[in-house]
Amino acid sequence: MAATLVSSNRSFKGRQFVYKHASSTTQCEMTFGVYIPDHKPDEKLPALFYLSGLTCTHANFMEKSGFQQFASKHRLVVVHPDTSPRGVDVDGDSESWDFGKGAGFYVNATVEKWAKNYRMYDYIVKELLEEVVPSVAPIDLAKIGIFGHSMGGHGALTIGLRNSSKFQSISAFAPICNPITVPWGQKALTGYLGDEDKSTWNQYDASEVLKAYSGPKREILVDQGAADNFLAQLKPETLKSKENAEIVVRMQAEFDHSYYFIASFMADHFEHHAKILNKI
Amino acid sequence: MAATLVSSNRSFKGRQFVYKHASSTTQCEMTFGVYIPDHKPDEKLPALFYLSGLTCTHANFMEKSGFQQFASKHRLVVVHPDTSPRGVDVDGDSESWDFGKGAGFYVNATVEKWAKNYRMYDYIVKELLEEVVPSVAPIDLAKIGIFGHSMGGHGALTIGLRNSSKFQSISAFAPICNPITVPWGQKALTGYLGDEDKSTWNQYDASEVLKAYSGPKREILVDQGAADNFLAQLKPETLKSKENAEIVVRMQAEFDHSYYFIASFMADHFEHHAKILNKI
Repeated sequence: MAATLVSSNRSFKGRQFVYKHASSTTQCEMTFGVYIPDHKPDEKLPALFYLSGLTCTHANFMEKSGFQQFASKHRLVVVHPDTSPRGVDVDGDSESWDFGKGAGFYVNATVEKWAKNYRMYDYIVKELLEEVVPSVAPIDLAKIGIFGHSMGGHGALTIGLRNSSKFQSISAFAPICNPITVPWGQKALTGYLGDEDKSTWNQYDASEVLKAYSGPKREILVDQGAADNFLAQLKPETLKSKENAEIVVRMQAEFDHSYYFIASFMADHFEHHAKILNKI
Repeated sequence: MAATLVSSNRSFKGRQFVYKHASSTTQCEMTFGVYIPDHKPDEKLPALFYLSGLTCTHANFMEKSGFQQFASKHRLVVVHPDTSPRGVDVDGDSESWDFGKGAGFYVNATVEKWAKNYRMYDYIVKELLEEVVPSVAPIDLAKIGIFGHSMGGHGALTIGLRNSSKFQSISAFAPICNPITVPWGQKALTGYLGDEDKSTWNQYDASEVLKAYSGPKREILVDQGAADNFLAQLKPETLKSKENAEIVVRMQAEFDHSYYFIASFMADHFEHHAKILNKI
């Protein structure tokens, strides 16, 4: 359970850490990054969980998004896990870039072959949030936000809405909004959950979870590049605002699906989360 | 001569481009990046040249520094070349990480084996600045700054001071300040220039170039991490201010040699250059 320090770098007014630990949920060693702003010895800080997209590890966001500047400014701890189990080999986990390694889709797999390790949903919601991160970072568990990109945007929306007592603020960059209807999602959900009872897929579909959402009022910020090559896989138009969930989807002209897009709107996402978390 | 577009990504209020071109100076294909802020059709913008450190290509700065935010804010074109010839193989160019590929040291080699291709000094000062970049970016050649990191800091200081009519502003992150006295520099200068007449080395030594500098007044900003593992190779204490060159060396507690350090002070370096270039 204890996390082992992999690296530590001074960054803005804080430190960027990487840790690894033996996960009881995924039954293998997992790596994650955490940025911790300077703080007083007994001070607890709000935290943001960032979920990455297909093919990413914990490192892409850490190296390419420029988020540390805003974590430092707003004094938010930021946690960024890997996107799948890595320390274990399951037959077929490396055959494609959109399934298996780097593509855990933030689900708890039920198909036997994947069910032992591919449990990224529980890993994030339970083990990482409640046990591992509190052992290395001074987080205030009453003030937690979640955001992510693409497959990680799907993860942020579904995890955030389904666990509204644990996550108080939500946003996403170019999220997969309706995976049950698009090739990326259908492939992953068939693989991890099977296709005998597709009603089990709905719990991992942001637009379906949103329809069923009955929790406290949420304002959710979504940025989407208008020149994103993957728009047909993302379907932001399927996210419909309702009384207890206001969705603001901003179509950003000329932007694509890359980290250049993410970095360009990072400041706004931190403003969004800080405003909500600091009010609690 | 004509540069070919490799990639183009919307980033903040501008675009990040990568180009390649056949270089007449290095006699091989060279790749460089250039960020161009949004501008009017006939508008010319000031520009910054960024020189990277050992092992880097054009890409490290583009992906890891977060510079685009500030290039967009201050409306500066930013050019970031590779650190050595790449499209050619010279026997011995890949045996070590601090000599040959990724380690051109911004010199014009005179040792025969290297002299044909390893001409990064002339490549930057003449071909890239005066011919290639103006063919793809709207730069105002009267308002050019130069900065860089480590080996690239050495390049920025020596190129900037020796070409004061071409470069009006200079700064550096953790530059190699006195290469003629340290292992990295001695290895590179022996390899590229030979060690029969070491007086030829002085033109590529920032502290020696500074002593000899007789050009217009310069204020030079240098940031240096106090926890940098390579301090003994860098020797910032050898940079001595003089009447026409004020050197401000800021020792930054806890910071190392990484891009986390560079990113943390990027805003200040853009302020430094913009202030000088916008006054011209």
